[in-house]
Amino acid sequence: MLQPEDVYPSRIKDSAEVLPRVDPVIHPSGIDGSELLGEADIESFNEKGYLLLPNTFTATEVEMFRAELERMQNDISLLGSPEAITEPDNGELRSVFQIHKDHPVFSNVAKDPRIADIARFILGGDVYIHQSRLNFKPGYRGREFYWHSDFETWHVEDGMPRMRAVSCSILLTDNDAKNGALMLMPGSHKEYVTCVGETPDNHYLSSLKKQEYGVPSDESLKYLSEKYGIDCAEAKAGSVLVFDCNVMHGSNSNITPDPRSNLFFVYNHVDNMVFDPFCGKPPRPEFICSRETIKTI
Amino acid sequence: MLQPEDVYPSRIKDSAEVLPRVDPVIHPSGIDGSELLGEADIESFNEKGYLLLPNTFTATEVEMFRAELERMQNDISLLGSPEAITEPDNGELRSVFQIHKDHPVFSNVAKDPRIADIARFILGGDVYIHQSRLNFKPGYRGREFYWHSDFETWHVEDGMPRMRAVSCSILLTDNDAKNGALMLMPGSHKEYVTCVGETPDNHYLSSLKKQEYGVPSDESLKYLSEKYGIDCAEAKAGSVLVFDCNVMHGSNSNITPDPRSNLFFVYNHVDNMVFDPFCGKPPRPEFICSRETIKTI
Repeated sequence: MLQPEDVYPSRIKDSAEVLPRVDPVIHPSGIDGSELLGEADIESFNEKGYLLLPNTFTATEVEMFRAELERMQNDISLLGSPEAITEPDNGELRSVFQIHKDHPVFSNVAKDPRIADIARFILGGDVYIHQSRLNFKPGYRGREFYWHSDFETWHVEDGMPRMRAVSCSILLTDNDAKNGALMLMPGSHKEYVTCVGETPDNHYLSSLKKQEYGVPSDESLKYLSEKYGIDCAEAKAGSVLVFDCNVMHGSNSNITPDPRSNLFFVYNHVDNMVFDPFCGKPPRPEFICSRETIKTI
Repeated sequence: MLQPEDVYPSRIKDSAEVLPRVDPVIHPSGIDGSELLGEADIESFNEKGYLLLPNTFTATEVEMFRAELERMQNDISLLGSPEAITEPDNGELRSVFQIHKDHPVFSNVAKDPRIADIARFILGGDVYIHQSRLNFKPGYRGREFYWHSDFETWHVEDGMPRMRAVSCSILLTDNDAKNGALMLMPGSHKEYVTCVGETPDNHYLSSLKKQEYGVPSDESLKYLSEKYGIDCAEAKAGSVLVFDCNVMHGSNSNITPDPRSNLFFVYNHVDNMVFDPFCGKPPRPEFICSRETIKTI
């Protein structure tokens, strides 16, 4: 496949830039969004780049997901697998990738119309899972996830060409600012903040524990936060946070005893499949970025 | 001086315990608190172990304090002094101790009746500064301060005999849950959670960067947070947070661009001066614990 023009160059120059987004937020299609979301919600997503859908999954469903999560935390064989990422300082399970493929419980969730229909509407047609994972984020020593745009990484390190992907995070525990709920800069998805510093080889091996490349500069973050402010996605377990692939987001550490686990599914439009990574490095493994096996949801 | 009985033993046994507080929260004296605080506030402090006093210092005063803070951040000679504690990973200034002694701007604040009178009322008489410091807590990479009871450390490592000290934190920046405002467990001051693990030599050299000893166990924190909940001291710059020496508190990291600097003064009653450390180790330096020069405020 002919590599497309790099419309969103990053990690090339030695100073950060703010480039305009050249893709729509809600991609036009024949899908009638009004059956899925109210007009105000659609407008809010367009403006803020995220949307909180309270109580989307029932308490019973959340209980089932959490039982599977606990089983996985105690599954020694899982700890050794590449899909399992552990906390840098205590080895506790931090994330498990590719849950849409390998887990009978979670692969059904990926296809659930309550989230898949919304993804199809926002992205304007058929979608597939670009990446999925279970984030444990335990209490007491839950690490922070520094500010980043997912798209900047998926573009540079995976070769995702355009901003036509959306993430759905299903909260398995109550999230508020005290236990490090996700913070987002509402509206930041409309601007593309480039990062500095060339991507090192096998960057994913460290970045999934603590991201050091593809990290916005202090000046960029100050610019975005002063222009757009910072929202905190506080919601109860069972709620769904839908957010654009380019909205700047991150979360503080969590010293409270209350974990903030979530299921994370990234939907990508079938016309936006990945090319070669724009950073020129070898592609990241399949469990981080669907490249070999693409199945329309 | 004859070492008093250790009424609050900690870091002795190899399992944590919860012991009752045997000291009053508001120590009886002839001081009429009603001129300083409303009845509801007095009751609230007694019950919760902390009190937020909004807009105690004016914007002009806060500006003056911040100007001094910025001067200190750029004072190279300060960086090398023992009173200056830097962030473990980037060398940025984290705290400066003993600001009540060496800084014309801040030593006046320590005597300011708006806080000193409240300390005298709560502690029931004359007080002196046990410890004072300026916490920078910068944006972007502000570290977390894990859960702890100040008294547990001041008792074990400084020899403070009883719970008759109170801290006043003057907010120099707006604090909310997003930029890691202090979290407290309201009511936890009425129980004494012991810690495990013997205090290592010169523990303060590491503990001021990242506390590893004198840290409550997960079980103790779960017990306290389920029994008392977790409050977040959100307030504007110029507000004062008054909190009992034994209330369990801590703060998450701060990835937002907004710093949360504060001035921190610990008042101790003149009848509660420190003895030898109950851990049996050499005393900590004077800049952390007033022992040699005690001046009634």
